[in-house]
Amino acid sequence: MYNYPTTIRLHHTDAAGIAFFASLFIIAHECYEAFLEPEVTFTKMFTELGVRLPIVHAEADYYRPLGVSDKITITLKIGNISASSFSLEYYFHKENDECAARVITTHAVRDNSTNNPISLPEKLKAKLMSL
Amino acid sequence: MYNYPTTIRLHHTDAAGIAFFASLFIIAHECYEAFLEPEVTFTKMFTELGVRLPIVHAEADYYRPLGVSDKITITLKIGNISASSFSLEYYFHKENDECAARVITTHAVRDNSTNNPISLPEKLKAKLMSL
Amino acid sequence: MYNYPTTIRLHHTDAAGIAFFASLFIIAHECYEAFLEPEVTFTKMFTELGVRLPIVHAEADYYRPLGVSDKITITLKIGNISASSFSLEYYFHKENDECAARVITTHAVRDNSTNNPISLPEKLKAKLMSL
Amino acid sequence: MYNYPTTIRLHHTDAAGIAFFASLFIIAHECYEAFLEPEVTFTKMFTELGVRLPIVHAEADYYRPLGVSDKITITLKIGNISASSFSLEYYFHKENDECAARVITTHAVRDNSTNNPISLPEKLKAKLMSL
Repeated sequence: MYNYPTTIRLHHTDAAGIAFFASLFIIAHECYEAFLEPEVTFTKMFTELGVRLPIVHAEADYYRPLGVSDKITITLKIGNISASSFSLEYYFHKENDECAARVITTHAVRDNSTNNPISLPEKLKAKLMSL
Repeated sequence: MYNYPTTIRLHHTDAAGIAFFASLFIIAHECYEAFLEPEVTFTKMFTELGVRLPIVHAEADYYRPLGVSDKITITLKIGNISASSFSLEYYFHKENDECAARVITTHAVRDNSTNNPISLPEKLKAKLMSL
Repeated sequence: MYNYPTTIRLHHTDAAGIAFFASLFIIAHECYEAFLEPEVTFTKMFTELGVRLPIVHAEADYYRPLGVSDKITITLKIGNISASSFSLEYYFHKENDECAARVITTHAVRDNSTNNPISLPEKLKAKLMSL
Repeated sequence: MYNYPTTIRLHHTDAAGIAFFASLFIIAHECYEAFLEPEVTFTKMFTELGVRLPIVHAEADYYRPLGVSDKITITLKIGNISASSFSLEYYFHKENDECAARVITTHAVRDNSTNNPISLPEKLKAKLMSL
């Protein structure tokens, strides 16, 4: 489990007054990048590890609206993990409040040069299993 | 069925060289807004129709990467439609190419003042049934 | 002179009800990309022409708010042009209305491999001089 | 002076491999919002203070590229301040590195209901003068 604190900012919202649905996917990916650091930055991933983790599926359920200045915590959990793919689950919470949204991203594991499916590098697998 | 032609722009892409996964949700929503016009703009929706159509679920499957300057067409189809919710399906295609991605958005139908579930206004229902 | 018609979409706006200031820079860049096509796409620019045109300065003046569903036209004009840099000016108009905003972008001309300043390739210069 | 630490994320970058120019305006605004909190959130601004601070001018100078995973600090300084407008300056730095970019935003001060120019509320003025 990994907790990522962040804030809903004005640019995440739209004229309906609350966070735009796509903003939650963007924020979830920030959580994913923050979780991987410092062992696995995106630069290191492409070069050192020679791997890409393209998102092949993403989904979100929206339970409660989030508004500008809302302080939230995203709890990141590992979902399914197989030889050459894995899923991550992101639970969005305002403080002392029920879950506002859940995002899921499913990643394939590909060689960065050939784009062929490969197994998860040990370093990444260990990192994911730490969740 | 409704076809929405558009182009992948630089800001849709990221340092991995292709369209960022969340960009496809943003582009799908542009297609949705363009489809509703001119009968139902977002301004009219909130005021004239007194309705909100919050997205309660969204998902995407990514089959093939999209790159900067790619000319694409989104084919919009109606999915499930019930008394107070409906789903839309967006199929992303490059010219003469297989489907690059599919996005689905599921919308609730709510009164804009009370936020209570209501039935789809006739004008909106007719528009959706035209797909 | 080049005219680019587009529409303010929900994701361009924020909870203040109008287009977020940074959205106009994003939309201006879409206009820039559309103008360069089909002779100069971003893919061609990096490969065929071996050039980068990094933005070294950008500015915007906001005269009138733009709202969701607003149909606008951006008029693109050439500003200063020198051996290894040029400026573009983007004037945002709603139909039959005064100028809503002006964006300016200043671009350096760099070799894509060495990142050294170079002269504008003839193809690009001709394109820019057509404005 | 106010320091805002943040990180360049994948969605800030584009296929040219570095941060997209408009991303820096978005990040600067996040810094602005963080600075104003907790005394002045955007919700409080519109309601409690009855004021809007629309950006009437924005500009950026880009000195050095920023890449994905770069840890940066934005130093926020007050620029000009007059009866009914003020400017903010945002200096972007990577650790132990020269300034990567400077953003400036100029804000008008308007009554949230009438949209007429008004004087800066004392609470806001004090906050700005603390920079």
